Amino acid sequence: MEESNQQEPTPLGDLGEFGLIQHLTEKIDIKHKSSVLGIGDDAAIISAGKGQKVVSTDMLVEGVHFDLLYTPLKHLGYKAVVVNLSDIYAMNAIPEQITVSLALSNRYSVEALEELYEGIQLACEIYNVDLVGGDTTSSQAGLVISITAIGEQEESKIVRRSGARENDLICLSGDLGAAFAGLQILEREKSIFESNQKIQPDLSGKDYILERQLKPEARKDVIQYFDQENIIPTSMIDISDGLSSELIHLSKASGIGVQVYEDKIPIDPSTVTTCEELNLSPITAALNGGEDYELLFTVSLDHHDKIKKLDGIQIIGHVTDAAAGCQLVTRDEKMVELKAQGWSGV
Amino acid sequence: MEESNQQEPTPLGDLGEFGLIQHLTEKIDIKHKSSVLGIGDDAAIISAGKGQKVVSTDMLVEGVHFDLLYTPLKHLGYKAVVVNLSDIYAMNAIPEQITVSLALSNRYSVEALEELYEGIQLACEIYNVDLVGGDTTSSQAGLVISITAIGEQEESKIVRRSGARENDLICLSGDLGAAFAGLQILEREKSIFESNQKIQPDLSGKDYILERQLKPEARKDVIQYFDQENIIPTSMIDISDGLSSELIHLSKASGIGVQVYEDKIPIDPSTVTTCEELNLSPITAALNGGEDYELLFTVSLDHHDKIKKLDGIQIIGHVTDAAAGCQLVTRDEKMVELKAQGWSGV
Repeated sequence: MEESNQQEPTPLGDLGEFGLIQHLTEKIDIKHKSSVLGIGDDAAIISAGKGQKVVSTDMLVEGVHFDLLYTPLKHLGYKAVVVNLSDIYAMNAIPEQITVSLALSNRYSVEALEELYEGIQLACEIYNVDLVGGDTTSSQAGLVISITAIGEQEESKIVRRSGARENDLICLSGDLGAAFAGLQILEREKSIFESNQKIQPDLSGKDYILERQLKPEARKDVIQYFDQENIIPTSMIDISDGLSSELIHLSKASGIGVQVYEDKIPIDPSTVTTCEELNLSPITAALNGGEDYELLFTVSLDHHDKIKKLDGIQIIGHVTDAAAGCQLVTRDEKMVELKAQGWSGV
Repeated sequence: MEESNQQEPTPLGDLGEFGLIQHLTEKIDIKHKSSVLGIGDDAAIISAGKGQKVVSTDMLVEGVHFDLLYTPLKHLGYKAVVVNLSDIYAMNAIPEQITVSLALSNRYSVEALEELYEGIQLACEIYNVDLVGGDTTSSQAGLVISITAIGEQEESKIVRRSGARENDLICLSGDLGAAFAGLQILEREKSIFESNQKIQPDLSGKDYILERQLKPEARKDVIQYFDQENIIPTSMIDISDGLSSELIHLSKASGIGVQVYEDKIPIDPSTVTTCEELNLSPITAALNGGEDYELLFTVSLDHHDKIKKLDGIQIIGHVTDAAAGCQLVTRDEKMVELKAQGWSGV
């Protein structure tokens, strides 16, 4: 019989706060010239660079934003970084640095934190971002992760929510509703598991929607395409709360109306199947599900041909005047006003 | 009889997340030219400015860093900002922007959050800092505050922990141990209150130490003095964990030793009185108490006269070679090695 190599988890207290930070961050290398000084001083130092800095911050709370019953810690670390980078890309900027603050209770082991940091570091590698600072502290309750991302872009290329103009095309990367469908499956399997722990979860055929929920990606590729093709969107936002909510944000910030078409909104077939299985409307999942981390942007009509030729970008509608409001044209050609939440008109 | 004007607290849910952020931040004005775009987009925009950026982040957790039984929310908001600014000053930089992320449970009312934000805004006014972004989310447990501060300074003036050289003077602003003494008093009164709620807390004569604990200040004035007098410290750190711990950080980062003198370490008379009352050693409070947010720095001997003439800056020792380690010379001229924590040699 083989001897188990399984070791006892190491309590956090064994390393102390300074030891812990050092242990978790010693393998981190600095990639950007702009990251002058990383972890280990009162503050990180970042050089000014050629343009402006954009700064975004997000907090993820256990039991609110994630459930550790079905969220691997490595995925959680990865996702926590990605959702912040998505905000930087939504300004048409390139993220270069992040800081990570963690509050966690003693029930976490050093090995658990290592897993979380593995995910954080993997995201840093894939998105070419430097981890330059942070804080690790105890918590009497669950895990809290707060990340601040800093990016850079030339002033003239930064895209705000406020620049959309009448007749602009409304465009969307990727597809919507999958992360929401994935979450519903995870919650379903969790409640089955809680009622009978002998039943194995049935996740077959759900790879895509589960990955969209547990390990989303930010659309770095779209920003790179804009750069190559000399496209500067007139406005942009990332989809964290759902397409409806983000369209309303754009319309308020730009002082315009929007008209989008139900049959143009991209939904993956596995999202449709899952929604039907769960008695949910796929279009409601797409409009209000959220956590898609796709980019919603407007471009002037001149860019129509450039946008058309890019795989995975869909023109879903156009900008109207403010008085027209935020409208969805349904498959049966009815006009339905978009609501930020709870909309269920289809 | 007068009618009560006391109104029922407003539940957080009444405003919704977007409404809440808007409500709390609508009075915020932007002071710095470098704050190009504040709250209301995917990310804030900050102009590059003349020098380098420094970035610092800190997380405060209910039940770990603060106890709401004796911490007014306005003070808490103020302190949360100040402890971050202190890190920026410790780089000899000028803080210009902060982002604030909050996680809080439904038991908080809108009015409670307004108080917290009053403190945050007061600190922003006094320290001339812009609140440019943040995130507000729910929490199943207590309140968590995560703040990131961004400052600026010319490259040649930024001070790290690593520049101390042999024979440099070791200097300290203000006095130490008061915040720790204040905390002990608050904890004592809390336990008396918990055993008998009719006993009123006895806090007479404790104003200074309580203010140092509940509403500390960051040493902006010291950084301004350096600028006026053309002093650039060779190394600097702020005192959050205690003088011993920070001296050890400087010694490790700079590859030097330190020798400081017990009789030079400034302790306020009310700190001494309180420590004696509580059977604590004042010098232990000064060395290991922490939360002083004073600046510990080293300067070359050339600056001796300039430092001497500044009120409230004390020369507490000098830099030695690394082999000599971190030594305290006691009042009876014994040498005691400084330890990061739990040191109680006097």
